[in-house]
Formats: sequence, structure tokens, C-alpha cells
Amino acid sequence: MAEQDVANLRESLAAGSARAVREAIRAGRWRGTTHGLAGGYVQANLAIVPEASALDFMRFCHRNPKPCPLLDVTDTGDPEFREVAPGSDVRTDLSGYVVYRDGAPAGEVGDLRDLWRDDLVAFAMGCSLSFDQVLLANGLDVAHLRKPGGRIAVYTSGIACTPAGPFSGPMVVSLRPIPQAQLDQVIAVTRRYPATHGAPVHVGDPAKIGVHDIKAVDWGEPPEIGPDDVPVFWGCGVTPQAIAMAARLPFMITHATGHMFLTDLTMKDIAQ
Amino acid sequence: MAEQDVANLRESLAAGSARAVREAIRAGRWRGTTHGLAGGYVQANLAIVPEASALDFMRFCHRNPKPCPLLDVTDTGDPEFREVAPGSDVRTDLSGYVVYRDGAPAGEVGDLRDLWRDDLVAFAMGCSLSFDQVLLANGLDVAHLRKPGGRIAVYTSGIACTPAGPFSGPMVVSLRPIPQAQLDQVIAVTRRYPATHGAPVHVGDPAKIGVHDIKAVDWGEPPEIGPDDVPVFWGCGVTPQAIAMAARLPFMITHATGHMFLTDLTMKDIAQ
Repeated sequence: MAEQDVANLRESLAAGSARAVREAIRAGRWRGTTHGLAGGYVQANLAIVPEASALDFMRFCHRNPKPCPLLDVTDTGDPEFREVAPGSDVRTDLSGYVVYRDGAPAGEVGDLRDLWRDDLVAFAMGCSLSFDQVLLANGLDVAHLRKPGGRIAVYTSGIACTPAGPFSGPMVVSLRPIPQAQLDQVIAVTRRYPATHGAPVHVGDPAKIGVHDIKAVDWGEPPEIGPDDVPVFWGCGVTPQAIAMAARLPFMITHATGHMFLTDLTMKDIAQ
Repeated sequence: MAEQDVANLRESLAAGSARAVREAIRAGRWRGTTHGLAGGYVQANLAIVPEASALDFMRFCHRNPKPCPLLDVTDTGDPEFREVAPGSDVRTDLSGYVVYRDGAPAGEVGDLRDLWRDDLVAFAMGCSLSFDQVLLANGLDVAHLRKPGGRIAVYTSGIACTPAGPFSGPMVVSLRPIPQAQLDQVIAVTRRYPATHGAPVHVGDPAKIGVHDIKAVDWGEPPEIGPDDVPVFWGCGVTPQAIAMAARLPFMITHATGHMFLTDLTMKDIAQ
């Protein structure tokens, strides 16, 4: 597709529904990331595990709702997220997936048609891309969005997750530099959205949660922290991937970075 | 124990902690119901199922949070609710249990010492006993508590639960007659507590949710509805029992009516 056509399609999908985005991906018309698409709809992290690990994984999500806010779980072998996206097909409705074998990344794929199995269970977990949109809509500053294509700073923290079966390890967190004057409002806004990580897990001192060098990101890009900014950390949807890798699951699939699952939930639906 | 001693102990436990109540039950010092005990602490419905059914049961809770607000789930074979009641033992910390075999009640027992198995998974779900206390604390009327020992009216509604595996069927609901003048406030207060069933599932017309004769309760006592009262329905923790019976689970255990599990969570902890 020509560059201008891609830009036009992105603009059209940005204003479209979640279903329209899923259909464009399923039809092969969109292979890009989902940043900014289907404005107002909740985007989700995806994790697919064999049924043998699914009960423990679901316990892990329930015990760690800040990094793993569970939006929906499929029936075993059923590729449809019936609660949050009726008519969806998790095998084809994301524009990029990562396959893990024995805990290690084993390649990216564009769909799961050849990989799907009758024993797989898919989990959709809220994603902070969605709450960045709410911050912007409230006139609040989101530092990593100041420049086009800017990526958020993500770290493995020293906060231990509550274990469940083979799943245990540190919480992965995202850092947003927040202007001091906006701090209370940012906390208040994000607290209303537990389904997209909710209130911060820490405000102020990175070292207090085991982040000793904020330039040394584990994922994403180092943050630009201004003199009036406070570092604020939220639970991050990379946590379940990191935990599942550490558990050396024989087989697991996640979304590829930035290629999220679009749910029919709106931010209004999930606000509390 | 003499009647006066029972009354004294109840009074002492009413002002005590959840842990104190669990310990009194475990030690055999309290065999009564938990109505009014450990004021301010969240009481929970209990369901114990074999691991083979646990993933579907957990999916059922996630898909039906109004009747089944999941507070905690144990590891398989572990009798401790580590999240909501560290140090608890679900085999001994309730004062009455019902055992179901092939979907039918097969007797009540006072503890689970002889029935516990390595493949069992226990679920604690929020209970509306707790939110009745919040209504009272807010100066609101709770009709079934107007007379001592009064029991709430509970019905099988026509609202279908979202199924999960073998679990499907109608939502069980509780009815509280609410004075019209207090209606908005009651809805607002209960909405803040999704972990104890949250906002009503229906306000106004019992027939609209398939309750055609409010005198014909399925559990509890018929309500006394005054001329200024509006019938208001909430999801009820009897739902998972009814659903599991309908699914004819080979083996299941629940709390006995009124003999709830006391968690260390306070209503303040779970308020949103």
C-alpha cells in the first residue's frame, strides 16, 4: 500500500469502531500497530495459554489486578471473546502475534490460523494505551506522546507479584513523567479505570520500587523528565508475558508490541 | 452453652475482628450464624469445587460479577484464602457447610476435616449481608432487618446468567423494599461496592425480571412492602449454588445459609 493510502486508512480507522478495526485486520487490509485506532474503545493485551495452565493464569490475573486487569477469557478452544467482542476471532483479529516455546520467543506471526489448538484459552487484559487517551481528553499531559511515535518507558520493578502456581516474579511497570500541578488529577482520573491498570502503583521515587536507573529501560524508550515532573508508575500489561516466560510455559502466544486486541468496550463502559 | 452465654459471645464477636470470629469457630466456641458478627468486615459466600470444574466456575464468576463477585480463589488443594484471610483454614473456619453430590444436597457438616481433598478449589464471593450494614450505617432503611431475625426475600429470576462450560441458568436475586425517597441514595451507595453485588440489577417491576408473585419466595421470607416502597433487586450469592446444582456437579461444598466466611477485608477496603 502506498504511504498516503496507509495514512488515509489509519485516519479512517482512528475514527472507526473497534469492530471496523478487527475486520480490517482480519481482511488483511491493516497490518500496522493499533496506536490511536478506534478512539474511545478499550484496547487489550492478549495472552493465550494451554488449558493446563489456564486456571493458574486466571488466578494470577485475579491476584494481580493492577498489572493484569482481566477483561475477558474465552472458553477452551473457542477463539471468540464473547463478552467484550462478540463476533471476534482471536486467531485473525490482531495484526501481530508472538509465539513463545518453553518460555522463549520463537517468532512473530501475522495470524494464528495454523497454530490454533482445541486446548487453548485466550485472555484479554486492559491496556494503558486506552487510559493515555483519557488523560489527553482531560487536557492532561502524556510525556511520551509529546513526539510522534514516542514510546513509553517500561521497567521490571522490585515489586513482587502475588504468585499462582508456576506464575511468579516481579511486576513490570510503566513510567509517566507527570507535571506536579497535574498529579492529583492524573491519579484521580486513572483510579476510575481499574480495567486499564487503575491508580498508580508508585509515585515519586523510582528507587523505592527497585528502579535504580530510569535511563536503563527494559522495554520502550527512556523518559524525558522535566524539572517540574514527578515520576509516576503504573502496573503494565507486559507483566503476564514476563511472568509466563519466567514460568517456561511450553507454549504461549501474546500480541506483538503495539498490536493490541480491540474490544467493543468503551472507556465510558469501564469507568467507575 | 447457656442462652445468656451465647448472647454475650455474639455481642463480643459482633465487635470483634474477622480473625477472632474465624478462630472462635475453629475452636468450636461458635456454631451460630454470622449475621452481625465482625462488624465492618466483608462476609463471603463459599463454593468449593473439584479442580476439573474450577476453571469453568472461575469463568462463570468473571462473566457474572453481579451475582458472583469473586473475592479470592485458593490454590488447588490449599485450604487457605491467602489474599483475603491470611492464616485462615476453609476446612474449619465456617460454622456450617452443605455438601452436594451429583447436584443434590447430601447433608450439612460442621467442618470439612474428613471431606477435604487435594483436588479441591475454594472460591469466596462477596455477600450482601455486608452491604446491608453499610446501608444501615448510612441511615438507610433495610426492611428485612426491621424485625429481629427477619430474612431477606430471594427469588429465581428470569435473567439468564452468561454461561461457562456446564454452568448456566437463571440469576438468583434478592429483593429489598426501598422507600422511594431513599432510592437514589441506596443505588448510589451499593454501586460503590461491586465486591458485594454492586448496584441493583432491577428497580421497580418484579414481573420485568420474571418474578410474578413476590409472595412466592424461593428462599427466605416474603417481603413486607409498604405503600411508599419500591421493590429493588440485587444479584444474590445463592446463584452459584443454584447453577452448580443445575450442572449436577459430582461433588461440591458451600457454606450453610447464614454461616458465611469472614474475610479480613473491610467495607472500606472494597469501596470504590
